[in-house]
Amino acid sequence: MDRHAIELAAARLRDDGRRFIRRTPLWPLPGAALGVDCREVWLKLEHLQVSGSFKARGMYNRLLAHPIPASGVIVASGGNAGIATAAAARALGVKCEVFVPTVSSAAKQRKLRELGADVVVTGAAYADALEACLARQRETGALLTHAYDQPEVVAGAGTLALEMEEQGGRTPEAVLVSVGGGGLIAGIAAWFEQRSRVIALEPELAPTLYRARQAGAPVDVAVSGIAADSLGARRIGAIAWDVAARHVADAVLLPEEAIRAAQLALWKEFKLAVEPAAALGLAALQTRAYVPRQGETVALIVCGANLDPGTLS
Amino acid sequence: MDRHAIELAAARLRDDGRRFIRRTPLWPLPGAALGVDCREVWLKLEHLQVSGSFKARGMYNRLLAHPIPASGVIVASGGNAGIATAAAARALGVKCEVFVPTVSSAAKQRKLRELGADVVVTGAAYADALEACLARQRETGALLTHAYDQPEVVAGAGTLALEMEEQGGRTPEAVLVSVGGGGLIAGIAAWFEQRSRVIALEPELAPTLYRARQAGAPVDVAVSGIAADSLGARRIGAIAWDVAARHVADAVLLPEEAIRAAQLALWKEFKLAVEPAAALGLAALQTRAYVPRQGETVALIVCGANLDPGTLS
Repeated sequence: MDRHAIELAAARLRDDGRRFIRRTPLWPLPGAALGVDCREVWLKLEHLQVSGSFKARGMYNRLLAHPIPASGVIVASGGNAGIATAAAARALGVKCEVFVPTVSSAAKQRKLRELGADVVVTGAAYADALEACLARQRETGALLTHAYDQPEVVAGAGTLALEMEEQGGRTPEAVLVSVGGGGLIAGIAAWFEQRSRVIALEPELAPTLYRARQAGAPVDVAVSGIAADSLGARRIGAIAWDVAARHVADAVLLPEEAIRAAQLALWKEFKLAVEPAAALGLAALQTRAYVPRQGETVALIVCGANLDPGTLS
Repeated sequence: MDRHAIELAAARLRDDGRRFIRRTPLWPLPGAALGVDCREVWLKLEHLQVSGSFKARGMYNRLLAHPIPASGVIVASGGNAGIATAAAARALGVKCEVFVPTVSSAAKQRKLRELGADVVVTGAAYADALEACLARQRETGALLTHAYDQPEVVAGAGTLALEMEEQGGRTPEAVLVSVGGGGLIAGIAAWFEQRSRVIALEPELAPTLYRARQAGAPVDVAVSGIAADSLGARRIGAIAWDVAARHVADAVLLPEEAIRAAQLALWKEFKLAVEPAAALGLAALQTRAYVPRQGETVALIVCGANLDPGTLS
């Protein structure tokens, strides 16, 4: 995973006649607007991406990179990866099967069906749905998308960083990125290499990269909490682990209350309706878990908005 | 009201050491992303403005343009103009009195109090609150802000158009603007003069400019409906009427259902949580009340987000 792979993905997405992937706005604000003593805070409004999260970049990149069999595309995910895969498949006019565990919400299942996916509800936990998905894939030969641990998925996510650098006209000194399975941070860190300090943010209740760094290798962790819906991978991905070892400066844990407070502040003060996972950057600034230097520009990746807006009332 | 007044306002807001007014993102999308056969649709995300609507530009510009007496600032408004005035007064550290009618919601009154305003609840209708406000202003000598019909308020709103032209690097062929009292469209049309076709959009149930154009002069209209909260002025402002006569190409009415459908689409497809008034642009495109030419770039002004997000669920 390197800059070249990301440039290839960016060219592929840019040359797509459907223009399915959106160029999302970059919103530079003075640090003071967020109560931070630094030059600027950049909000990369990637929650405005098609499908409501950054995942569309990676999923669509993977679909464009491979011939798609008549059996279509297949994925195990009740969350943003499933929604992004279903949306990408619909855009390309190919079949899509999504495997979700029985615990996934009726609203999520409905959303997937609205996008034209065949939804298979099976197994108590995600791991069971994944197992069934893989068995089905062996039967049908459908193209499998993985939520975070495939090269095309990571490179697609990395196009967000390339785009942000183009939009800002320079490299921010620091980039704060929420981490679940690590596909997003892997793409971003691979793009910036060490031209920016890339900081991993995780909920205390879903610490995949933090625990891996402690253990010296990826390990399974228990996941729960307000952001588990999108950051609830059990283990950091292999690609992310490899890139993070070289290019991620630090991994920081954030408490539930700080994540929720930041989510509410993003709505109340900035009118950004985002899911908890997208609020970790502001939470890190508000709790001073990350303190920018005075002259610094720090970029926050606002990564998703697949939420019930009523939870912001 | 002309370009010079708007340039002065823009310089005043830019030179403000507090950097209170935000530069809001411009989001260019291919027309196809919104189901429209045109070159580009620009979404000017002004609902991300401080105070949750474009009104902050005008209110803050007025406050900066005048010495503020010890009695502070005074306004009659239970809506975006009141919120913007209270926010601007707080930023400047001056007192603020807001007169609202008894019909205004408890949530709005709470919001005003959170911003540090003294809220005076009086009179059954807005006109009664205004009368009480004006009487109080004569007593105290406080600086009065008007929701739409003062030169500094209109020039402040016009800075949005100047900023959008800078951000886009060119002039869009058409600009679709929601109209209540007309402060926003007056600023925008005065900026573009006739370099863009500026189109007024109004709910069928709040047709101030439309009826004025029929009558040949501003007239009182009955107002109600989904967007009355922010577009519910009873009569087009004098400044807006004057500018519109010279620089507004057309006035279009939109039905309630189209406004609501566009508001829901902005959330569902674009993750923009906005108030009904901010959805008229998309409603005009979706209903083909406005049909752009193929090569055209059409700009929509997404003007406010002071809503209960639960209404989008």
